Amino acid sequence: MEQYAIGIDIGGTTIKGAMVARTGRYRERIVVPTASARSGTELFDRILEIIASLIERKERTDDLCGVGIGTPGFVDQHGTIIGNAVNLPEWQGTNLYEPVMKRFGLRTVAANDATAMTLAEARFGAGRGVLNLVCMSLGTGIGGGIVSGGRLYQGVRGMAGEFGHVSIDPQGILCGCGQKGCVEQYASATGIVHRAQELCAAGAVEETGFVRMVRTAGEYLTAKQVYDFVNNGDPVALKVNEYVCDNLSRAIGIIISILAPDRVVLGGGVMMAGRVIIDTVLHRLPHYCLMDILKQCDIRAAELGEDAGVIGAGSLVFEGETHNG
Amino acid sequence: MEQYAIGIDIGGTTIKGAMVARTGRYRERIVVPTASARSGTELFDRILEIIASLIERKERTDDLCGVGIGTPGFVDQHGTIIGNAVNLPEWQGTNLYEPVMKRFGLRTVAANDATAMTLAEARFGAGRGVLNLVCMSLGTGIGGGIVSGGRLYQGVRGMAGEFGHVSIDPQGILCGCGQKGCVEQYASATGIVHRAQELCAAGAVEETGFVRMVRTAGEYLTAKQVYDFVNNGDPVALKVNEYVCDNLSRAIGIIISILAPDRVVLGGGVMMAGRVIIDTVLHRLPHYCLMDILKQCDIRAAELGEDAGVIGAGSLVFEGETHNG
Repeated sequence: MEQYAIGIDIGGTTIKGAMVARTGRYRERIVVPTASARSGTELFDRILEIIASLIERKERTDDLCGVGIGTPGFVDQHGTIIGNAVNLPEWQGTNLYEPVMKRFGLRTVAANDATAMTLAEARFGAGRGVLNLVCMSLGTGIGGGIVSGGRLYQGVRGMAGEFGHVSIDPQGILCGCGQKGCVEQYASATGIVHRAQELCAAGAVEETGFVRMVRTAGEYLTAKQVYDFVNNGDPVALKVNEYVCDNLSRAIGIIISILAPDRVVLGGGVMMAGRVIIDTVLHRLPHYCLMDILKQCDIRAAELGEDAGVIGAGSLVFEGETHNG
Repeated sequence: MEQYAIGIDIGGTTIKGAMVARTGRYRERIVVPTASARSGTELFDRILEIIASLIERKERTDDLCGVGIGTPGFVDQHGTIIGNAVNLPEWQGTNLYEPVMKRFGLRTVAANDATAMTLAEARFGAGRGVLNLVCMSLGTGIGGGIVSGGRLYQGVRGMAGEFGHVSIDPQGILCGCGQKGCVEQYASATGIVHRAQELCAAGAVEETGFVRMVRTAGEYLTAKQVYDFVNNGDPVALKVNEYVCDNLSRAIGIIISILAPDRVVLGGGVMMAGRVIIDTVLHRLPHYCLMDILKQCDIRAAELGEDAGVIGAGSLVFEGETHNG
């Protein structure tokens, strides 16, 4: 009998649900917009509906081991959301475990969404078989996760892996967290868009197709649009990429010096840009890392794409004790 | 029957040996100057002599479980020194395990010296009972170690915890490793001395007792002398301390954002300065770290003093499999 867990991935734009097997295969994928939930309670009701709907579609339930939830913010050992999940302000204080147990009799395990993505890549993706793994998710923000000796390292209250707030410049851009120079301000989708806009607003830049596109797009500019021009070799877009990847490399260099992982996996929406980010980072990293350590480490793109989060969320259930404290 | 291991701590100045019990107690401490060994072979002969001498002094040897060595540089899984141990250039390539086994029939476990110190503080010192621990050693250089879920996290080839090479400023001071802004250039004993000399050489500084002392001491200035004046409230010395601790706090903030430890322990010779470093760091840290994570973490001084290295080295033997890769 194959064992299943329900995986729920709460993103800023959508909530995803799926029935995830112990092998990492998944089916019955459900996607619901997050924005339609106006409060923490409404958001959680939406999640309970997804769980109910997934259970309903299943012929048997004796092979169902529990519910795994990947969420923005942090989760304490009792399943309560702690800290501020930036895009979901009312989410803080919500307990995820009790209501699921009460309604469905299912054990719930929750973790930060980037931790869930890390677990998926570690078990079934680009980090398969790697003992010491760092996974960095470049999305709207930047998150991450750590695997140490084959197991998730989550730190106190699951808070480890906040790679987006590694400061790479004490005089750098002010971040919403109050620090200066957080790498999230440079290499997240939001950061990339802002840096592109800034560069194109500066008068001295030559008038390329990219510059015209950025000015036309205005506030609707996306990181994908920027990287379409990077991949077409637009000289100004290439400058944006150099700047983004140089700063990203600083952060990766620091993370490598601290953790000495066998592998760093880069994932998240920004990585849909293809090889160019990895290639530029590989070129810059030797400036920002101890060479003895860097030589032992390789850098790869994530393999599981946008469903890594939901696969990882389900997989949390099969990991046993995942919290370090 | 109490079990023992021989601990060997190789420092830039001295090699220490001791008989270390599983409980962390130790006796028969031997200290030999490192400088007298002119090559890697000579250094290793010195170590073998210490081991022989410790065994000789023991009435029985059936309670002797092995030899643990803490060394500058990195050690691979076969016991060979890899990478450049800055103060011991000829040490690279030396195999530590075979000769000890051959001559004494004893199993050897070696690790980076800061990793050994971390283990000692984790088991018997300021990190006792802490699940997720970061230990930072402020000495001639800056090293460190990580405990994850109660076990040493060493990363690939034991290379994790190179906190001294966390860059806190991309435009900062050039480090011997080739990077700019490594925190070692600011908050190690060497870094503190250089920053004090620079500040006092600048003409604009008022003429305090500290400034006169620094000018008189010239190249013989030590971090201890600097901190004696800090503790006496000399205004220029206090400025040096602010600068040192501000930069140290940046690195600690980055480490905390990445690892979310329950506790950070600061040790090494520089910490002989007393409370002032911890107090200044606690004051600066909120600027350089996610508050949600910082709130869960406390910062403490190491407890075991200068013998942490030798205690930790011996304790490596009792840790079972310590390498993560």
